[in-house]
Amino acid sequence: MHPPDLTYGDFTLPGEAGHEALTLRLAKKWGADTIRDSDGTQLSPEIVQSGYDIYSTLCLPRSVQPWARTHRDQLQQNYLMSFPVVAAKATTTITLLAGFFTEQFAVNFKDRPRRWWQVFDRTTGEEVPKSRWSAQPRRGTVAITGTVPGHSYTVNFLAFRIWEEISMYNHLTNDWGDREHLAAVDPMQPAVQRVLLAYLGQWLRGHPDTRVVRFTSMFYNFSWFWGADRATLRDVYSDWGDYAMTVSPRALRLFERRHGYRLTSEDFVNGGLYNSTHNAPSRRYRDYVAFIHDFVIAFGRRCIDLVHRHGKLAYVFYDDHWIGVEPSSPRFREFGFDGLIKCVFNAFEVRLCAHARGVRTHELRLHPYLFPTGLKGEPTFAPGGHPTLDAKNFWIDARRGLVRAPIDRIGLGGYLSLVEPFPDFQDYVAALAREFRLLKSFHAADRPWCAPYPVAVLTAWGDLRAWTCSGHFTPGVELYDVLESLAGLALDVRFLSLDDVAARGVPPDVKVVLNCGRAGSAWSGGHHWDDPRVETALTQWVRRGGGLVGIGEPSARPRPGRHFRLAPVLGLDRDAGDRVANGRFRYAAPAGRAPGTAKHFITADVTAPLDLGRDVDTIYVFDAATQVLAERDRTPRLAVHGFGRGRSVYLSGYRCTPENTRLLHRALCWAAHREGGWAAWSSSNIRTEATWFPRAGKLVVINNAGTPQDTVITLGDGRSKRRVRLAAHGIAVRDVAG
Amino acid sequence: MHPPDLTYGDFTLPGEAGHEALTLRLAKKWGADTIRDSDGTQLSPEIVQSGYDIYSTLCLPRSVQPWARTHRDQLQQNYLMSFPVVAAKATTTITLLAGFFTEQFAVNFKDRPRRWWQVFDRTTGEEVPKSRWSAQPRRGTVAITGTVPGHSYTVNFLAFRIWEEISMYNHLTNDWGDREHLAAVDPMQPAVQRVLLAYLGQWLRGHPDTRVVRFTSMFYNFSWFWGADRATLRDVYSDWGDYAMTVSPRALRLFERRHGYRLTSEDFVNGGLYNSTHNAPSRRYRDYVAFIHDFVIAFGRRCIDLVHRHGKLAYVFYDDHWIGVEPSSPRFREFGFDGLIKCVFNAFEVRLCAHARGVRTHELRLHPYLFPTGLKGEPTFAPGGHPTLDAKNFWIDARRGLVRAPIDRIGLGGYLSLVEPFPDFQDYVAALAREFRLLKSFHAADRPWCAPYPVAVLTAWGDLRAWTCSGHFTPGVELYDVLESLAGLALDVRFLSLDDVAARGVPPDVKVVLNCGRAGSAWSGGHHWDDPRVETALTQWVRRGGGLVGIGEPSARPRPGRHFRLAPVLGLDRDAGDRVANGRFRYAAPAGRAPGTAKHFITADVTAPLDLGRDVDTIYVFDAATQVLAERDRTPRLAVHGFGRGRSVYLSGYRCTPENTRLLHRALCWAAHREGGWAAWSSSNIRTEATWFPRAGKLVVINNAGTPQDTVITLGDGRSKRRVRLAAHGIAVRDVAG
Repeated sequence: MHPPDLTYGDFTLPGEAGHEALTLRLAKKWGADTIRDSDGTQLSPEIVQSGYDIYSTLCLPRSVQPWARTHRDQLQQNYLMSFPVVAAKATTTITLLAGFFTEQFAVNFKDRPRRWWQVFDRTTGEEVPKSRWSAQPRRGTVAITGTVPGHSYTVNFLAFRIWEEISMYNHLTNDWGDREHLAAVDPMQPAVQRVLLAYLGQWLRGHPDTRVVRFTSMFYNFSWFWGADRATLRDVYSDWGDYAMTVSPRALRLFERRHGYRLTSEDFVNGGLYNSTHNAPSRRYRDYVAFIHDFVIAFGRRCIDLVHRHGKLAYVFYDDHWIGVEPSSPRFREFGFDGLIKCVFNAFEVRLCAHARGVRTHELRLHPYLFPTGLKGEPTFAPGGHPTLDAKNFWIDARRGLVRAPIDRIGLGGYLSLVEPFPDFQDYVAALAREFRLLKSFHAADRPWCAPYPVAVLTAWGDLRAWTCSGHFTPGVELYDVLESLAGLALDVRFLSLDDVAARGVPPDVKVVLNCGRAGSAWSGGHHWDDPRVETALTQWVRRGGGLVGIGEPSARPRPGRHFRLAPVLGLDRDAGDRVANGRFRYAAPAGRAPGTAKHFITADVTAPLDLGRDVDTIYVFDAATQVLAERDRTPRLAVHGFGRGRSVYLSGYRCTPENTRLLHRALCWAAHREGGWAAWSSSNIRTEATWFPRAGKLVVINNAGTPQDTVITLGDGRSKRRVRLAAHGIAVRDVAG
Repeated sequence: MHPPDLTYGDFTLPGEAGHEALTLRLAKKWGADTIRDSDGTQLSPEIVQSGYDIYSTLCLPRSVQPWARTHRDQLQQNYLMSFPVVAAKATTTITLLAGFFTEQFAVNFKDRPRRWWQVFDRTTGEEVPKSRWSAQPRRGTVAITGTVPGHSYTVNFLAFRIWEEISMYNHLTNDWGDREHLAAVDPMQPAVQRVLLAYLGQWLRGHPDTRVVRFTSMFYNFSWFWGADRATLRDVYSDWGDYAMTVSPRALRLFERRHGYRLTSEDFVNGGLYNSTHNAPSRRYRDYVAFIHDFVIAFGRRCIDLVHRHGKLAYVFYDDHWIGVEPSSPRFREFGFDGLIKCVFNAFEVRLCAHARGVRTHELRLHPYLFPTGLKGEPTFAPGGHPTLDAKNFWIDARRGLVRAPIDRIGLGGYLSLVEPFPDFQDYVAALAREFRLLKSFHAADRPWCAPYPVAVLTAWGDLRAWTCSGHFTPGVELYDVLESLAGLALDVRFLSLDDVAARGVPPDVKVVLNCGRAGSAWSGGHHWDDPRVETALTQWVRRGGGLVGIGEPSARPRPGRHFRLAPVLGLDRDAGDRVANGRFRYAAPAGRAPGTAKHFITADVTAPLDLGRDVDTIYVFDAATQVLAERDRTPRLAVHGFGRGRSVYLSGYRCTPENTRLLHRALCWAAHREGGWAAWSSSNIRTEATWFPRAGKLVVINNAGTPQDTVITLGDGRSKRRVRLAAHGIAVRDVAG
C-alpha cells in the first residue's frame, strides 16, 4: 500500500476576487483541488483560469428576480394561522397578518379564499361554516358572523412569501439597507419551471469554467415564519424539516389527484403547531411529504440532466432550501446528483452526510464560516475572535464522526480575505486537511471495527431522518444529544420507524433498540404507538433476548393507568400526575462509589452524580426485578430490568457529555448482553476514543478535549494494552495488527 | 354583654376506666362538660355516673362480628384490577390476587363472574369477549384463550374484604398478634340492615347513660387496597374520597334500576387508576356517588331515627367510614345528625367542619391524639416526645381556621392516662380551651370582617369537596396548600364546580375565581373543560372586570396549539413539549428588590426568591401585555395580565408558607382591583394575622410562629396603626371600635 499524499486534494477553498494572490497561496498551502465562490463573493478570471476545478453556487428559486417581481402570483406560498382573536360580539373581524412580518408575507386573496381557507372556533375545536365568514381583500381581514363572545377564533389562510428567508435573514442581520429583497418563485407552477430551466441553460452557457454546479439547495426552504415585532417574537415558527413552505393550491390539487383525497388547511396549520418534525407526523402529512419529495426529484432531475448535458457535475448543498431533497430517502439517487455537501457543526451531521446513498462524493463544509461573526453574533475573524481555537473545537466534534464513516472531501466557505491576519489559522487548516486525508486513506479500503451488536434508533420517522432530528442541533431535544454521542462510538447504528417494526418486526441482526424522546414527539413515537403491532413486536423481541434502551419517555402513549407502552419491559412507568392515589413501589436506594449511584457494569466509569439535563421526573417502579442504579428525589434516573431473556435500560434524560457518552455506550453493551466484549478497543480515558481499522492495521486514537490527555487502549483481544499520550485536540495513529 | 365563662364547657374529654381520679381531675381542670370513650378504652360506671354528658363511639359495619364471620357473602366488596400479565402464549392464566394482600381480600366467585367481571387487553385497550375467558374458583385464577403473545392482560374482578382496613391497620401497626380480624358487613344487603338495626336497638338499650352516640362514621370506608409485600408496596391504592369500597352486584343492580343504565367494572377500575378523587370524575362515576350518597342517607337516617327514639343525640365522626356522608352536600341535613365531629390537622379542616350545614353542633377532635406515638411513628406521649410543643403547633394551625369560622366544641381522644406524666401538657390544654372559648364568644353574635371581594375556588367537584381535596393533606397536591393558606385569611371563600359555571356562570357577587391544579386533575378541571360554556363564561366574566388567579395548570385541557383553555385571559400558556418549533415571546426579565422578582403590588412583601414547591415549568408568554413578575430558567413563575376590564394572575405552583400566603392574598386582592383597600386589617408581619369582630369591637391578632413576634396592624380606616407584641404561639385581643 502506497503511503497516501497528505498534502493535496479533496479540499474546496473559497476564492475571492481582488484577493487573487492570497487565494492561490492558500490553495497551495491547504492542498486545495477546487475553488468555489460563496454567498457575497465572486471569482475573478484570474482565479477561474488558474487550473483549479471550479464550484459555482446557484440558488434556483431566488435566481429570477426581475421576473419574480412582476409575477407575484408565481411566488412560493404557505398556510398561516392568524393569531387567535377572542370574540367580543356576534361579529368578529380578524386582521390576517396581525403579528406577522408584513415584509415577508402578503395574503393570497387571488386563489378563492372560500375554497382554500378555513376558520376555526378554537374554543369548541369546530370549523366555522364557510357561509359565516368572508374575506375582505382591501382591508386584509376576514369578518366572521355568528361568533360567540368569549370564544377564540383563528383563520387559516394562504400567504405569498414576498421576501425569501435567507435573503431576509442576511439582509436584516447585516443591515443591508435598500438592497433588493429577493423572492422565491414556486417551481410547482408550470410557468416558473419554464423560466427556471431557461435561466439554468443560460447560466450554464455563461459559466464555461465551472466544473461543479453547487445547488443551494433545491427549491423549498425550511419553514420560518417571522413575527411583526422582531424584538419580542422574531420567530413565530421555525422548523428545519417542515414542508409548510411548499404549499399552494396547485400542489393541493395535484396531491388530491395523486392520493385520491383532499388535504385541508388544518392538515398544515394544526392549531398553530404546523407540522413540526419534532411532533409525531400524521399519515396525511407523510403522504404530502412523499408527494413533494416526488415533485422535487422529478423537477430537480430535469435541472440536473441539463447540468450533465453541459458536461458539468451537480452537487447539492444540503441546507436552507433542502425541503424535498431527503438524502436518506431510498429515492435520493433518482436525482442523479454527483455530490452532497453538508455543512457540519456536529459529529451526527458528518454521519448524516456519509449515510446518503446515491451520490459519489460526500463533502463537508466545515466551520467556522469565514465571516466576521459567528451564528450567535460572537466575533470570529474580527478583533476579540479566536478563529484557530474555534476551528479546533469544531474539528474535534466533526472528527468523531469522520473516524467512524467515510467522507470524500472537505472545504470552507465565506470571505477568504478575512483569514489573512491569522497565520496560525492558515497553518491549522493545512494540518487539519492533512489529518482528514489520513483518515480518508484508512477508510479507503477498510471499515472501522464495530461492536458486534447493531443498534437501531426507533422513531416515527425512521431512516428518513437518520442521523438528525430536524436539521441542526436543537437544545432540549434529547435525541440530538444521543445521536451526537452515537456518532463517534464503535457501533453499527441503524434507524427504524415504528411503521417498519409494525410491518416487519425488528431486523434479525439488530441486538439493541433505542427509543428516546418526549411523549408525543416523533422521536418517542407519539400516536404511532397506537398500532399494537409495535408494542407486541418489541415486547416479544426483548422477551426472546433483545435489548431495549429507553430515554426520557420511551414508547409514551398515555392511556389510563399506563404511560409507557413498553412499561412491562422497562419495569417502570411515568406518573403523569394522575397517580396521586396509587402507591409507589419501594426500591432499594442506589448506593455505590458515586453519590446516589449503584455499582453496576453500566455505572463502572461513573465518578460524580449523573447530569442528564432537564430530565423526566415522576418515574415509578412497579417490579421488584427493576434495579434502580441512580435516582434523584426518590425518582429513578437510571434503571435496569430483565424481561424474559432480554434486558432493558432506562435513562430519565440525556445530555451529550463524555461521561454520558460512556454511560450510554455501556448501557447499549449491557442491554446486548455483551459485557464480555466490552474491553475490546475501549479507552480508559472517557475524553479519548479509539478506532481500529483492521485491514490497514491502524489504531486511531483521538482526543476530544482541548487539553492534553493520557489514555490506555485495550486491544481487540480484550487484554493487551497500549498507552497513548495525546496533545490537546490531538490524534495518534499506531500500527496494530488484527 | 356578659363576659363569657372561659373556664367551662364545650369540651369533650376522653375518659379511661382504671384512671377515674385523673379523668375527673382533668375534666375539672380543662372545663369539660362531656366524657367520651375511645377506640381501645372503656368508661367505668364511676365515670359514666359522675354527672358529665357521655359520648359513646359506635362503628356499625364492624359491630356484628360473629354474624359477619358466618355470613361472608354479606361482607363489603370492591372491584380490583389484577396486576397486568404479559401473554407469552395463546393461553394466559392470571392469578387474580397475585400482588394483593390475601388477608384483606377474597375473590367473590359467588356472584357470576361472567356477568360482573371484565377482562381487558391493555395493549389494544379492548375488552376480551366473555366467551374467551373463564374463572377457576379453586385456583383463584382466570384463564384467557386467544391471547396475543406480547399483549398485556388484566382482569377486573369482585373481591370481598375479609379484614376491615382500620382494624387491619391498627392490628398490624401495633402487632396485635392473634386478636380477631374484624370484617365490615355491607348495609346494602337487606339481611345486614336487619342485623344492624337489631344490634343498634340492643346497643341503645344497653347504654342508658350515653347522651351522644358518636358514629365512626357511617358504613363505607375510604378506599385502601393493600399489596402482598408490605415492605415494597403496602398501598396499592388509597384514596380518601373514592367510593370504590361500596360496590356490590346488588348496588350495581339498584343503580341500573335508578339511573336507567348499567355501570361496568371498568367504570370503577379505570385501568388501575380507579376513581381517585384527585382525577376529574366521569359523569357515570358522579351518578354513582349520588346514588350511594342517597343510600347512605336513607339507611343512615333509619339508624339516627332509632337513636333519637331512645332520647339520645347522634353525632357523626367524619373520618374513616365517611364515604357517602358528604357533609358539604346540600342533602347532608337529611341525615338528621345533631353534630359533626372532625379530626383536624390543619386549618382547612376546621373550615370544612364549620362549612357543614344541617347539624347544630360542629366539634373538632384536636391533635395530638393521646397515644404513645404519632401517625408517622414518632414518639408523642413517650420518652423523647414533646407533647406540649406538638399541641401548640397543631393548635396554631387549627386556630387560623377557628378565628375565621365558628366552631361549637373541641375535644381530645385516646388514652388519658398517658398525659399523667406531662403536667405542662395538662396546663396547656386548659389554656387552649380558654382560648377556644374566647374565640367562640366572639363568633357568637358576630361575623369576622371579610375583604369585600368574595373568592370562588373552581374545581370539577365544586362545593361537594369544599375545604378539602380528598381527605387529609396530601403533599404535592397544590390545592391543599392553597386551601390551607385561604383558611386563615379574611376572605369570603366559595367553592364552584365547572358544571355550576357552565349552567349558571360565575355568581354575581364573586370577584375572583381561583383555579389550581395539574392537567387532568379534578382541581384544575380536566375533561370538564370540554363544555365550552365554562371557557366562555369565565372569559367574558374576566373581560367585564372579573379577576382570575391560576396556579399550576389552570384550565388545562390540551388540544393542538393550546394547553390552557383560558390562555387568552392569562396571557400565557404551557408548552407540553410539542412547541419545539414555535418561537418563544421575549418578555422583560423581572428586576426588583428580591432576586428575579419584579416590583409590583403583589410582590411588595417578597424579600427572597419565590419557593413555589415542585412547580410547573415550560410556561410561555404570548402577549406583550403579560407582565412577568418572577421567573426561573427563563420560564415565568408569577405573571399578571390584563384582559378587557379584568385581571389575571398566574403562579406556577404553590406551597403553604407565610411568604406565599401573603403573596396569594395580595394576588387575590390585585385580581379583584382592590389594592386600595389592602391595608385594612393587614398585619405588617407575615407570621401574624389579624381578625376584627365588628360588633364585639375586638381585634384578634394571632402568632402563627413558635417564636415571639412583633407586628403593626393597620385598622379598618386603612391608616391608623396598632402595634402588637405576641408570645410564641400567642394570641392578643384588643378593643377596637368600628
